[in-house]
Amino acid sequence: MKHIYTGKTKDVYALADGNYLLKFKDDVTGEDGKFDPGANTVGLTIEGAGRAGLKVTKFFFEILNARDIPTHYIDANIEDATMTVKPATAFGKGLEVICRYRAVGSFLRRYGMYAEEGQQLDAFVEVTLKDDLRQDPPISEDALDMLGILSKEEYKILKALTQKIGTIIKEELEKKDIELYDIKFEFGRIGADGQIALIDEISGGNMRAYKNGQYIEPLELEKLMLEA
Amino acid sequence: MKHIYTGKTKDVYALADGNYLLKFKDDVTGEDGKFDPGANTVGLTIEGAGRAGLKVTKFFFEILNARDIPTHYIDANIEDATMTVKPATAFGKGLEVICRYRAVGSFLRRYGMYAEEGQQLDAFVEVTLKDDLRQDPPISEDALDMLGILSKEEYKILKALTQKIGTIIKEELEKKDIELYDIKFEFGRIGADGQIALIDEISGGNMRAYKNGQYIEPLELEKLMLEA
Repeated sequence: MKHIYTGKTKDVYALADGNYLLKFKDDVTGEDGKFDPGANTVGLTIEGAGRAGLKVTKFFFEILNARDIPTHYIDANIEDATMTVKPATAFGKGLEVICRYRAVGSFLRRYGMYAEEGQQLDAFVEVTLKDDLRQDPPISEDALDMLGILSKEEYKILKALTQKIGTIIKEELEKKDIELYDIKFEFGRIGADGQIALIDEISGGNMRAYKNGQYIEPLELEKLMLEA
Repeated sequence: MKHIYTGKTKDVYALADGNYLLKFKDDVTGEDGKFDPGANTVGLTIEGAGRAGLKVTKFFFEILNARDIPTHYIDANIEDATMTVKPATAFGKGLEVICRYRAVGSFLRRYGMYAEEGQQLDAFVEVTLKDDLRQDPPISEDALDMLGILSKEEYKILKALTQKIGTIIKEELEKKDIELYDIKFEFGRIGADGQIALIDEISGGNMRAYKNGQYIEPLELEKLMLEA
């Protein structure tokens, strides 16, 4: 097993069989010692954060795999805080795909002239470029196509997959009386035919969720999700 | 004739026949005494700027009308610096529609990870909200539809019209050895059936143009365009 990449919250190892091992770390992104899933720097280390994120990730990926939704997930070892995944290639230098059920965050900062805070959105999908330097700019279907990042045909698949996965996760949260406001995903191409599949993780840090009108912190969300 | 609105660079009057009169002023947008067509404040007054903008606007609108492209333009009186137009309603609280032939400006600021400065773009269309407070954010086809600003059907028409008009203007500039890099338009709905039509003006301040690799200032561009 060969170490090939050190990420902010995960290390990546290549396995002999061609798959990859993701090691979840207790480092979380944030600023000034405060956990902020949207931040681009590692802010602090929280004992158990890696395992908690992996447990939730495993929980959701196993539901998705059982429903035949393409993902990179193979299996997970909670004790070691590792997840085995299929190799995947990113779209361009990486995209984030957001699915929104309520108008909050950057959506509201951009479209506040037309939307009220907390207004319901019908699984609204938008794509942003992973580009810290340029503040992860939103990008349109036309621009993705023109810049050779994603074809129109692939965009359709990506959008439909995003709404399908978002809704499955939303329904799982609802079982715990938690309401999903928005969630961000990463996708890649896997296999010989470059099938579009969900990659990375699905943990508290990927979503904004509320319970009884109160925002739930990522680690608290993971605790609530994994309670019997 | 009733004064109904004082704009940054134009005053608007309602005519008895239901049409409107736009009075082009010599006030131009800018900051710190420097002309900047993209600025949101009036920066200075330039003798003759109103008439120059109107002359170019008249020139282009008459070409478009002759080609049966829907516009709000009826006629213009250069001496009075006035243009008579049909009544139009904006999309939402106003949109700007940009057609790009080269990667510069905000396109490059957003997508510089994937595009080189000056790279050719194939009449790429994007839409931004007119919202000074939120720095005129870009908005996708899906968001325009969801927020009730523009239907998917209308977006298709808007995009096709933008590319058609952009290309006509590009060809006109080429006759003077000027290369159009990008241009912004405003559209509205006119007539009983709410037909999508080009509104506002088409002057040097709406476009970025180069001659022999040199950027041409709006007023200089207007001079070059109107030379015999």
